[in-house]
Amino acid sequence: MNIIEPIIWNKNDKTLKILNQLKLPNEVEYSTKKTVRDIYYSIKNMELRGAPLIGITAAYGVVIGLYNLSNNESFIKNVENSVNILKDARPTAVNLFWALDRMLGKAKEIEKLLIPFEQKKEILEEEAGKIFREDEEGNIKIGNYFIDNYLIKDGDTILTHCNAGALATSKYGTATSPIYIAKEKGWNIKVYADETRPYLQGSRLTAFELNQAGIEVVLICDNMAGWVMKQGKINTVIVGADRIARNGDVANKIGTYSVAVLAHRHGIPFYVAAPTSTIDIVCESGKTIPIEERNSREVMEFNGQKIAPDGIKIYNPAFDVTPNELITAIVTEKGILTKPYEISIRKIKSQKI
Amino acid sequence: MNIIEPIIWNKNDKTLKILNQLKLPNEVEYSTKKTVRDIYYSIKNMELRGAPLIGITAAYGVVIGLYNLSNNESFIKNVENSVNILKDARPTAVNLFWALDRMLGKAKEIEKLLIPFEQKKEILEEEAGKIFREDEEGNIKIGNYFIDNYLIKDGDTILTHCNAGALATSKYGTATSPIYIAKEKGWNIKVYADETRPYLQGSRLTAFELNQAGIEVVLICDNMAGWVMKQGKINTVIVGADRIARNGDVANKIGTYSVAVLAHRHGIPFYVAAPTSTIDIVCESGKTIPIEERNSREVMEFNGQKIAPDGIKIYNPAFDVTPNELITAIVTEKGILTKPYEISIRKIKSQKI
Repeated sequence: MNIIEPIIWNKNDKTLKILNQLKLPNEVEYSTKKTVRDIYYSIKNMELRGAPLIGITAAYGVVIGLYNLSNNESFIKNVENSVNILKDARPTAVNLFWALDRMLGKAKEIEKLLIPFEQKKEILEEEAGKIFREDEEGNIKIGNYFIDNYLIKDGDTILTHCNAGALATSKYGTATSPIYIAKEKGWNIKVYADETRPYLQGSRLTAFELNQAGIEVVLICDNMAGWVMKQGKINTVIVGADRIARNGDVANKIGTYSVAVLAHRHGIPFYVAAPTSTIDIVCESGKTIPIEERNSREVMEFNGQKIAPDGIKIYNPAFDVTPNELITAIVTEKGILTKPYEISIRKIKSQKI
Repeated sequence: MNIIEPIIWNKNDKTLKILNQLKLPNEVEYSTKKTVRDIYYSIKNMELRGAPLIGITAAYGVVIGLYNLSNNESFIKNVENSVNILKDARPTAVNLFWALDRMLGKAKEIEKLLIPFEQKKEILEEEAGKIFREDEEGNIKIGNYFIDNYLIKDGDTILTHCNAGALATSKYGTATSPIYIAKEKGWNIKVYADETRPYLQGSRLTAFELNQAGIEVVLICDNMAGWVMKQGKINTVIVGADRIARNGDVANKIGTYSVAVLAHRHGIPFYVAAPTSTIDIVCESGKTIPIEERNSREVMEFNGQKIAPDGIKIYNPAFDVTPNELITAIVTEKGILTKPYEISIRKIKSQKI
């Protein structure tokens, strides 16, 4: 099965090939990033997106910085410089800071060791590889939980919203992981993908990557999801999450809440697939999750062409919050969380890995 | 208040000015139609749309034909020729056939009268005017029923889907009629308009015409409606109807069903505003209403540019059916229909005007 790879690390020349997601679905164009600045701009300009993928990419950015180290720079100074550049690439991306902190922590840990400089670079390269593999392994676990616990079965039709796919992670994605793993088992799985206005991640990304992997995908406009459910075409809804409160309320791409209400109306299970890193234990409930409002041009214009009249207002929230009662289960890399989420989340968060 | 006029009949030179809705919201461009062929193409090319408006326009097409009558053509032959041309403009438009039948019926009624030919033309011109005014008066009645029966009140925020507005009718629209009339009374009414993918009637037409009339309108993507309701921003939902079954099931633009489910979840009244001509008494329930599937390019492309990958499937139903239980009331020009709709619809349909 051909799961798309959003980034490819080249061990030989220590460069990162990045798929330019802005050109999808019309062009599949990778470009080779050779400097920290290259990585910075690729994140900043949104050539790639998705919290886990941004983190992994930034980690490799630190590695690239080290291999470009100039004569008058120390090991730790070089890492700090890279981290300072990269952390400004997307100021609100929690995974970005997390990954950079981890790389910096590792660098500090080995700074004083009496080992050759070449070996220090290799240790940090290995750390970036670990971040990549941990994400991949976590996603595989999420997918397997769906399959091993009968949350999806051969022949199912799944509806998803936005893109919590391979293009947002190392590989497999979160919401798409059970779909890819089912496909690898030879199961027959069909997917309805909401196009996900205004940014069209569903049509441009999810439909693209599932189709690439040979999975049957039907693209619909967001307003068709209810009617598709009404006709009995959907067995299961699986979406990702941007942030999960400790009571199980889930912030995710705008429109997720509507899908959850519609699934509830039709008795269709509604699953959230997300790593435990998405759970914000400090956040009491969805009420305290701030909702970013984005530029009105995303709704007003299409490729620079106006599709709405001047003088009107636009409301363009990037996310919404789905209340815990509408969520059948939250599937993480550490297991399946069910109601009451207050308790299951507390347990999973206190569990040692 | 400046309600947009989609067509303007010029009594002096017997021509029809038609607003080219294809160019909205970027250009407000009227062109003068002087021949039956002009009218035919304006309907066929979708310069205008909306069932009532198509009917009225076709009726004026017949009048234009008469004023262009050539020497060797009889009065009735001329009308028949116009009707034959115009009925092919939009083969599935029930109102088109209805209006043309009415014009032909009137022509046959007066054909043998011993009155001057000029007078016969005037009688048909007057008939087209009647079709126009009856539509307008019906819409005003619909609007007034909302206001007189407290279905909307000063200060309300209303959500609507697609365009059942002035641009689809003679004037006032159906779903927009209570909004315009409230505005005329000096009420403060705010409207959230779903953009209505894939054809964007909400952003291109509804937002445009309400804004023209000085009504505060907030444009949202379809997938934001649920979240807007969740935040308590919506008092009332009002939509139009393409066809109403005798049990009160309502076929309307795709996405209407989802809006109805979301309104139900949030305890928000969901009203359908439609003339009684929309009620198809032969149609037992929504199950027997055929749902047109439209070209996949509407979803796949935007102004000729691809926004989804090749090789995927598209599901693009033009309409969906909202079951009667989700509809708070159906407001017609003859009064307000409530549950059980089987009974209220039977009564209104048997009532003499």
